[in-house]
Amino acid sequence: MEHRISLITLGARDVDALAAFYDALGWVRTPSPDGVIAYDLIGQTLGLYPLDKLAEDMGLSVSDLGYGACTFGYNVRDKSEVAPLLQRAEAAGGRILKPAQDVFWGGHHGYFADPEGHIWEIAHNPFSPLREEDGAFRWLGYGGD
Amino acid sequence: MEHRISLITLGARDVDALAAFYDALGWVRTPSPDGVIAYDLIGQTLGLYPLDKLAEDMGLSVSDLGYGACTFGYNVRDKSEVAPLLQRAEAAGGRILKPAQDVFWGGHHGYFADPEGHIWEIAHNPFSPLREEDGAFRWLGYGGD
Repeated sequence: MEHRISLITLGARDVDALAAFYDALGWVRTPSPDGVIAYDLIGQTLGLYPLDKLAEDMGLSVSDLGYGACTFGYNVRDKSEVAPLLQRAEAAGGRILKPAQDVFWGGHHGYFADPEGHIWEIAHNPFSPLREEDGAFRWLGYGGD
Repeated sequence: MEHRISLITLGARDVDALAAFYDALGWVRTPSPDGVIAYDLIGQTLGLYPLDKLAEDMGLSVSDLGYGACTFGYNVRDKSEVAPLLQRAEAAGGRILKPAQDVFWGGHHGYFADPEGHIWEIAHNPFSPLREEDGAFRWLGYGGD
């Protein structure tokens, strides 16, 4: 098995409203003909899809599905970007779970939940700088390249 | 806001057991000094972290956290890869939610849940071929490049 996640799908009770939230964060949709809202990332796509159809697709019921046991980290290049991004998420209808603050491991971060309950961490990790040209992340950073 | 997810964190009640599952799928850990299990993907990292610590980090309780409202898609280059990967996940301790089958939109896919309940879709999408050199995915594919 190679190492990749091609598609992250967020189930949504209201796809249009959730897409409006991500639009408000500044994300730009990729043309998509079939009802899925798609945002291309770096070598992968974030998709928004109706929660009931997602459940049906998996052979589960909506009541089986929950939020938060996985989180999505968005790393930034500079510590000063964390708080404004959390504020932007709140202004767009998200909920700040943890305001921007220093972390014991030496970084700086905060969490928000999107309007459906999917949880994001906005983080600055000084030990794992993003790749300059495209913002790619890897665990031990691109600093040595 | 740029387009990226730097880190996908899967909360785990038993991090070592969950890591053993991903190891058994053939994933190779990135050296990680601080207790997080990390697998570098394409411009992002998949991390495994204790569920209770993840909840604490977000200011939530473990009982607030659920699974399945987001899913992770692993796309393959050929339709014939889907069923064997699902079988491999089952043999490693996962649970097949949906066996390999053709999908209405013209692809071929199936779903499994990992031992903690995180849900993966293994999919072949003939309309969005992976990038030849590194397996990267984007919504409209790399076929025209």
